[in-house]
Amino acid sequence: MKLYDYPTAPNPRRVRFFIAEKGQTIPIVTVDLAQRAQFTPAFRILNPSCTVPVLELDDGTAISEVPVICRYLEDLHPDPPLMGDTAEQRAIIGMWDRRMEIDGYLAAMEALRNSLPGLSGRALVGPHGYAQIPELAARGRQRLADFMADLDTRLRDVPYVAGDAFSIADITAFVTLDFARSRLKLELPDEAAALRAWFAHVAERPGTQA
Amino acid sequence: MKLYDYPTAPNPRRVRFFIAEKGQTIPIVTVDLAQRAQFTPAFRILNPSCTVPVLELDDGTAISEVPVICRYLEDLHPDPPLMGDTAEQRAIIGMWDRRMEIDGYLAAMEALRNSLPGLSGRALVGPHGYAQIPELAARGRQRLADFMADLDTRLRDVPYVAGDAFSIADITAFVTLDFARSRLKLELPDEAAALRAWFAHVAERPGTQA
Repeated sequence: MKLYDYPTAPNPRRVRFFIAEKGQTIPIVTVDLAQRAQFTPAFRILNPSCTVPVLELDDGTAISEVPVICRYLEDLHPDPPLMGDTAEQRAIIGMWDRRMEIDGYLAAMEALRNSLPGLSGRALVGPHGYAQIPELAARGRQRLADFMADLDTRLRDVPYVAGDAFSIADITAFVTLDFARSRLKLELPDEAAALRAWFAHVAERPGTQA
Repeated sequence: MKLYDYPTAPNPRRVRFFIAEKGQTIPIVTVDLAQRAQFTPAFRILNPSCTVPVLELDDGTAISEVPVICRYLEDLHPDPPLMGDTAEQRAIIGMWDRRMEIDGYLAAMEALRNSLPGLSGRALVGPHGYAQIPELAARGRQRLADFMADLDTRLRDVPYVAGDAFSIADITAFVTLDFARSRLKLELPDEAAALRAWFAHVAERPGTQA
């Protein structure tokens, strides 16, 4: 098994964090996104969506999409459970993880990809070029502000995003907010005390360094 | 168990199609989106994302997000498998279903929600209002054209989206393309022979009427 990765990209970081929480190690192949290596013919065969991460199994099967890769690894290594160990827990965690992705992660990508000069003509990932739309950069930042306020409200009631236990939903939210801070200069609001406390707590986990 | 539904909305249709393929029946509660019933305080408690479908379990737990609801139902009723019956099959089908969602379904929503006058100020689902962006309506249509071309290429090699067997990925793609046809007047291209043949074949399944 191999993980196609890029060190500074947030989606691969979600998977590295997940693998570290499982106590696993998977050999890494770096795909140099700065050199557009995701668009080479060889990589397109591996993943026609031209994204990292990709998990290549020993039989050559290539799996892309972060929650799908994580689900596969959870099936292989159920302990500790990060995606729920009953059908109902899987559903609750899956729902919260998707909310973190749609309301948080995609908003951060919208803000970044529509503003970074180096991504001109590549406002969406994938093999098709789409032009940047400046209004989307502003909308992405507004969505992130709404996301932080909503998540702060949630975390006043529960210690972790999906409830009582640390899960993949915390990984998605943490990587998103750390990315927003470092790449978009969007800090957690001072008044979001619950969100700030949760962020500081999750930041102590060794998986954040993976 | 109850399914909160709206008859003409495409996301609930994906779940109804899935339930029908399972040979199951789940009582329906209609949420009148035309009357903005998804924004009432009672519904916001059920689903703060203000979307349908929602699956309410007998203990009151509310599950939103289409693939999460389907995963829960698949856990309860594994036969016939629509999301894979091994870890590897689950990963392959999950990956293709997500591609259908991101490249197809989200593109259709982008085209519709940024152009329909009745959705002014609601370009994204959820509790926060975001303005329509006319460039996104055009981009959504372009993305759908790219999606159809890519899926036609895929279906020249395999009978179903995820490979040899009908799966949730076919449901997502079919509902997306049927929606694009009826609501966006985007027909399948004449030259996309494999896509057209697949669409006609899937259209014969009783689940499309659910």
